[in-house]
Amino acid sequence: MIFTKKRLAHIVFESDDWASKTFDIVVLFMIFGSIFVAILDSVGSVRAQYGELLFILEWVFTILFTLEYMLRIWLSRKPRGYIFSFFGMVDLLAILPTYLSFFVVNSQLLTVVRALRLLRVIRILKLGRYVAEAEYLTKSLKASSHKIMIFIAFVLTIVLITGTLMFIVEGPENGFTSIPIGMYWAIVTLTTVGFGDITPSTPLGQLLSSVIMLMGYAIIAVPTGIVSSEMAAQKKKMENRGAVQCPNCKHTGLDSWDEYCKFCGGKLA
Amino acid sequence: MIFTKKRLAHIVFESDDWASKTFDIVVLFMIFGSIFVAILDSVGSVRAQYGELLFILEWVFTILFTLEYMLRIWLSRKPRGYIFSFFGMVDLLAILPTYLSFFVVNSQLLTVVRALRLLRVIRILKLGRYVAEAEYLTKSLKASSHKIMIFIAFVLTIVLITGTLMFIVEGPENGFTSIPIGMYWAIVTLTTVGFGDITPSTPLGQLLSSVIMLMGYAIIAVPTGIVSSEMAAQKKKMENRGAVQCPNCKHTGLDSWDEYCKFCGGKLA
Amino acid sequence: MIFTKKRLAHIVFESDDWASKTFDIVVLFMIFGSIFVAILDSVGSVRAQYGELLFILEWVFTILFTLEYMLRIWLSRKPRGYIFSFFGMVDLLAILPTYLSFFVVNSQLLTVVRALRLLRVIRILKLGRYVAEAEYLTKSLKASSHKIMIFIAFVLTIVLITGTLMFIVEGPENGFTSIPIGMYWAIVTLTTVGFGDITPSTPLGQLLSSVIMLMGYAIIAVPTGIVSSEMAAQKKKMENRGAVQCPNCKHTGLDSWDEYCKFCGGKLA
Amino acid sequence: MIFTKKRLAHIVFESDDWASKTFDIVVLFMIFGSIFVAILDSVGSVRAQYGELLFILEWVFTILFTLEYMLRIWLSRKPRGYIFSFFGMVDLLAILPTYLSFFVVNSQLLTVVRALRLLRVIRILKLGRYVAEAEYLTKSLKASSHKIMIFIAFVLTIVLITGTLMFIVEGPENGFTSIPIGMYWAIVTLTTVGFGDITPSTPLGQLLSSVIMLMGYAIIAVPTGIVSSEMAAQKKKMENRGAVQCPNCKHTGLDSWDEYCKFCGGKLA
Repeated sequence: MIFTKKRLAHIVFESDDWASKTFDIVVLFMIFGSIFVAILDSVGSVRAQYGELLFILEWVFTILFTLEYMLRIWLSRKPRGYIFSFFGMVDLLAILPTYLSFFVVNSQLLTVVRALRLLRVIRILKLGRYVAEAEYLTKSLKASSHKIMIFIAFVLTIVLITGTLMFIVEGPENGFTSIPIGMYWAIVTLTTVGFGDITPSTPLGQLLSSVIMLMGYAIIAVPTGIVSSEMAAQKKKMENRGAVQCPNCKHTGLDSWDEYCKFCGGKLA
Repeated sequence: MIFTKKRLAHIVFESDDWASKTFDIVVLFMIFGSIFVAILDSVGSVRAQYGELLFILEWVFTILFTLEYMLRIWLSRKPRGYIFSFFGMVDLLAILPTYLSFFVVNSQLLTVVRALRLLRVIRILKLGRYVAEAEYLTKSLKASSHKIMIFIAFVLTIVLITGTLMFIVEGPENGFTSIPIGMYWAIVTLTTVGFGDITPSTPLGQLLSSVIMLMGYAIIAVPTGIVSSEMAAQKKKMENRGAVQCPNCKHTGLDSWDEYCKFCGGKLA
Repeated sequence: MIFTKKRLAHIVFESDDWASKTFDIVVLFMIFGSIFVAILDSVGSVRAQYGELLFILEWVFTILFTLEYMLRIWLSRKPRGYIFSFFGMVDLLAILPTYLSFFVVNSQLLTVVRALRLLRVIRILKLGRYVAEAEYLTKSLKASSHKIMIFIAFVLTIVLITGTLMFIVEGPENGFTSIPIGMYWAIVTLTTVGFGDITPSTPLGQLLSSVIMLMGYAIIAVPTGIVSSEMAAQKKKMENRGAVQCPNCKHTGLDSWDEYCKFCGGKLA
Repeated sequence: MIFTKKRLAHIVFESDDWASKTFDIVVLFMIFGSIFVAILDSVGSVRAQYGELLFILEWVFTILFTLEYMLRIWLSRKPRGYIFSFFGMVDLLAILPTYLSFFVVNSQLLTVVRALRLLRVIRILKLGRYVAEAEYLTKSLKASSHKIMIFIAFVLTIVLITGTLMFIVEGPENGFTSIPIGMYWAIVTLTTVGFGDITPSTPLGQLLSSVIMLMGYAIIAVPTGIVSSEMAAQKKKMENRGAVQCPNCKHTGLDSWDEYCKFCGGKLA
């Protein structure tokens, strides 16, 4: 089999035959491998023993990613379009940190950038069968975003007032050293995380906390209600996928959320 | 451009052109700015270094708010109506604390009142596009309020019984020093916050806690169920917004929850 | 106004005019008052200072409850039926502990029985407007109970396996001293309470915990889903309340969940 | 009553008369009894006092389970099929550990295997009336599994990025000793468990935590929404159980999710 440029482009960009699927899976393993190396590198005892091996592996992955990046630029029809696209930037960010580690002393920030390699997984999964499901989730969340933003604003107001009250009631001697700390505690409590690093000690503080917790119990239902009802609506829409007929050209296969017919361009009712 | 009284009133009370929107945004920034100053003022280290600056900023904001308050009184058609309205009181509360700090020694309570400035944000947002969404959330919550109150009463009964039982089973030597403390612990546990400041140590106490936690797991579903089903109902109503036709005057554009036609006053089916 | 026996019975058992409503409210206040006294009595510092007053108040409430109990026996048409009814037993339990405190040394157990006085509130609320709402909640929960029991059994299986695994992985040196303790920890973790009194210290234990927590995150949705869908179903039913017509006698006003017509006894479709 | 082989097989494998139900219940008690013994055996103080008794009980249960296992092999029509079936393996696993404890020194791992005896309960419950309910739950979860997997992948991405960020921001001096520990903390926080064994100490870390917690608050709604909407869909299906008529053979009693008629094999619309 001769790897023409067209064939290579197919392997790299598509995902519908043996070769292109294998390419995707190899890249997938490389991504997880490189992230695994970055994680292990942060564990003191592992670094002490295998530091050199991890260093070499990191460079192997970086060089492979660099080759893939160059391949993608060379193969894409509009190289500039690719480079400045979202995924092009992600691909660049995936290799830059290792090269920059020559110049930058504080290499810790680079570790975070390395974690961004995970974003590369999205592109590969996008080609898989999970698209419809992901699209469904994304649409539901997008439809709920307005309501959730109002809700978060409402929660933040409660957090500000609660944090201020607790700062005054409990005071610095019980760990509530400032309003921001009080707000941090309020978020920890309202979200039912409850670390316990700061806890109310005075009876009044405990009474106030109890009210806040019961309130949190009641309002935790709100985002769930929002997302649930949006999802039910999205589900209905999804079930009607391809069930609408255009009144002009009589073509079927249109979705209930289309505004215009994709066959004749006529406006749908 | 000459600022007539009518033009000024438009800028202050409406929000539909460049000038009035700018005014709203400036007030919005002032509110958040003054709250931010109050928050920073509570952080010991910041106060030590920038205390004087924060003091000056607080006075600048207060004077600006005072000017705005006077402007609103002067511009409103019924000044007395404005002063005693909800938002009028909020506006007054936003400026009073700073002036009162001359006379009151314990200025901490005033900080809470200062936090009430956040409420002023509501008026401005009310003019924005978030009204429909907020109305939807409020209606859902109002429709659920009866059920949620019964639920809270039910939870409080469990809390009282659990708190008493744990006080007896664990006793003061394990941190459960009184029934109120036991109830505080029960709320912390039932709401799944779980600070860990008080925890059961005896086998019987741990068994009891396990039962309570599993119970809490099951009943956390109830408020969610209530709000979800109300929201689904509200959603349906909202979708029918303006879809009802009056049987008398044949006007359309009525909402499904209207009881009387707003055009002819006839009773809707 | 002369208080005939019939009039008194109306005041005590009904709740539809000024006198009977006042009676209910007075009893309600007495219940909450006596519980409040029991709670305060458990607080060491309060007891030290006001112990005698609380003791007197407790006896005042007990004597009032005893009078009310006797009044109810005297007024009810079937005294024996009342005494052995659920609420009759609750009323007796509300006064017994105080009298028993003469003979019983360990008076702490009696405090729990005293907390049962709260149950008396139910009868009074039952007469109020909250019946329909409470009935709706109860029906939804009853309809979900089968599914929730399977779910709890499923959770307990996970708890047993997890508790055993953590006991082996972490061991007594990290606080997991036995399988029951491991199960207690598993319940604390799965229900997202997370006290933090026992936490995994070994890497393997932390990995296992992470899996369990993510699992708990996913399965916390199940009871909510169960109750939500049941509530939606109940809501629909409630909306059809009184909307069904009997095919035999043509009477309307029947509910969609009735099986037989309450007017002619004919089977409904 | 003579116990023929056929009669015995009925008792062991069915559950529809007095004898077979008694057999099931006895086995059920044996399973819970043996698990209870294993649990008690892990408690140091109990083991010290009753170790010998527990050891004897464990052997009694094992021998009874062995006899039951042999009975099942002898009675089943296809012994080989039974032995290699899922429940045959579970039955074998239920007795093996005790025999293996002669040869294996580390008997702790065997305790986990012993906990697997719980799985035997499923077979017995399968014969009960809980099948339909369990099937309903299983179907809802299976239908949601795709979406939940995407969701877990999404959560793990957040966990990786958050864990890395916290490792860098807080550092080893505040307990965040490595990225895996940071990820463990992120899972503990996002799932709202909040042990409090590791907590942010720096202002930046606390700010980051607050954002993560609020995010967790918002996304906890997603799995609930998924499962809820699936359950509502399943519920609808279940209600149509046996309500579909075959267009070919006119038989009714088909379910809405059948694809082919179970009477004539014709395809259903």
